[in-house]
Amino acid sequence: MRAPVIDNLQYANWSEKIFRQMRSGGVDAVHVTIAYHESFREMVSNLEVWNRRFEALPHLIFRGSTADDVELARDTNRTAIFFGFQNPSPIGDDIGLVEIVYQLGVRFMQLTYNNQSLLATGCYEEDDTGLTRMGRAVVTEMNRVGLVIDMSHSAERSTLEAIEHSTRPVAITHANPDWWHPALRNKSDTVLRALTNAGGMLGFSLYPHHLAGGTNCTLSQFCEMIAEAASRYGAENLGLGSDLCQDQPDSVVEWMRAGRWTKNVEYGEGSATAPGFPPMPDWFKDNRDWDNIRDGLRDTGFSRDETDGIMGGNWLRFYRHSFGPK
Amino acid sequence: MRAPVIDNLQYANWSEKIFRQMRSGGVDAVHVTIAYHESFREMVSNLEVWNRRFEALPHLIFRGSTADDVELARDTNRTAIFFGFQNPSPIGDDIGLVEIVYQLGVRFMQLTYNNQSLLATGCYEEDDTGLTRMGRAVVTEMNRVGLVIDMSHSAERSTLEAIEHSTRPVAITHANPDWWHPALRNKSDTVLRALTNAGGMLGFSLYPHHLAGGTNCTLSQFCEMIAEAASRYGAENLGLGSDLCQDQPDSVVEWMRAGRWTKNVEYGEGSATAPGFPPMPDWFKDNRDWDNIRDGLRDTGFSRDETDGIMGGNWLRFYRHSFGPK
Repeated sequence: MRAPVIDNLQYANWSEKIFRQMRSGGVDAVHVTIAYHESFREMVSNLEVWNRRFEALPHLIFRGSTADDVELARDTNRTAIFFGFQNPSPIGDDIGLVEIVYQLGVRFMQLTYNNQSLLATGCYEEDDTGLTRMGRAVVTEMNRVGLVIDMSHSAERSTLEAIEHSTRPVAITHANPDWWHPALRNKSDTVLRALTNAGGMLGFSLYPHHLAGGTNCTLSQFCEMIAEAASRYGAENLGLGSDLCQDQPDSVVEWMRAGRWTKNVEYGEGSATAPGFPPMPDWFKDNRDWDNIRDGLRDTGFSRDETDGIMGGNWLRFYRHSFGPK
Repeated sequence: MRAPVIDNLQYANWSEKIFRQMRSGGVDAVHVTIAYHESFREMVSNLEVWNRRFEALPHLIFRGSTADDVELARDTNRTAIFFGFQNPSPIGDDIGLVEIVYQLGVRFMQLTYNNQSLLATGCYEEDDTGLTRMGRAVVTEMNRVGLVIDMSHSAERSTLEAIEHSTRPVAITHANPDWWHPALRNKSDTVLRALTNAGGMLGFSLYPHHLAGGTNCTLSQFCEMIAEAASRYGAENLGLGSDLCQDQPDSVVEWMRAGRWTKNVEYGEGSATAPGFPPMPDWFKDNRDWDNIRDGLRDTGFSRDETDGIMGGNWLRFYRHSFGPK
């Protein structure tokens, strides 16, 4: 039985074409974003749209709830779709919604998306005050129900406090080390050591603003960075979270950056001269290119087992211990 | 292994005391109302309150999702709680919410609560126009996801059309035959024959306004009515739905009757001189009294198997075929 392939973050303009590309690329599971700035009710509407997709395309995709669903997907030649929020906006100030969204299939929730939230501080704020009072309560509740804490867009102190306060391993689903590329969204060695020492997972991002050299980053540069990360943090704590935003119009990156929280234009990791989605590297254009990364990891010297782990086996193990009550 | 006891409708002022009474009375499963006039978001808040109860009292109650949960409850000396709406208000005009509420554990939904809804006509309206356009679409969707159609508070034509349009058996969870007691909420012989001929279930109500003689109705009168119903509709299509509203203040019956749809006082099945909850019959005051009904059925001449069926076995069979996709 081949090892699973899991991409632990995508936000594409979903279509049958993309789901077929997942099948071509052998992607068994994808963690997809269903909320950036949405209210609870708006997020439910996004779930409804997914339910329509599951009803229309049951031969290609289904809702994933458990680690076993990754193996079911592999065994039935489909892709299991796991839901996550990049922002806790859907739960607002109501801790009871943590269990409700878990019941609706949500398996990951970021405590912040760039800005200060009710729970913690995002990586774009100047001051990082760590977990809020509600943040601590919500981390405890997420631990109880088995909803994974994702700190991809959070600030340093908040991330360290979440790792410290959480009784279960935390994830950074899509980011890279800042010692490789010092983007605001990439993570410090301190954070990555604390994360992985506590059993947490890092998913490497393929979003060009997170890559050294951006769109021109080469496959071997990317894989050499992973090799260095493996030597520091252990290959077993590493996976992929491509942040692929395939086929999205630039209006979507504007929504991600500015939501409804400002009337100003926000450029995020882009700039006034390059405000849109940057082009992906030519060795990872879409879901058909996972074999390039597998080959790159092998060429960089990773063993077959290590490569299988980074391609999906490590996320699968993490899913098995993280989803649902202990 | 003893036969299960299922009460297919209660709306109590829930407390640990009541859940302990369910254990004393050997009630394995209860269908509880979580919406009368609530919006989607308000209904979710009601679910959150139930989640807190399940967390606090796991030795007494848990959320029921499948027929197997009734047996799990019996085998672990607990009560499985199944959720239902008496009104489709939580789904509003959004058919996608049918599957969402199913995912949240809802297993029954009435198409109307006394008044005209977006789906059908309630039993208090003067004109009954049957299923609406959305009503037909929602019946089809409820059939697909396995959410049971409950016509307890619906008008005659609407009920007959729901039975006709539905491809799966329908329930009248809490009502009595109008040939026994001609209340607006009780059901005609025509409706009950159509219901049961299509495999549907009738749950007999113990709400005094639905009883011949009201609070003074005797156990043997109640059981004689069930015997007559069994001769007309088959004992296997009969169960119980007590409509017990234990420990509720009269403000709750005011909410049931008037919600937010009128500024007038509504008396429902009560009257200006008796506006509150009527006292229950002395042989069924609360969940500790199920053995009285069991004994009454046996004394009326029902066999042990027929009695077991009416006490819960028939609902269990109905649950098994009705919850979830076919």
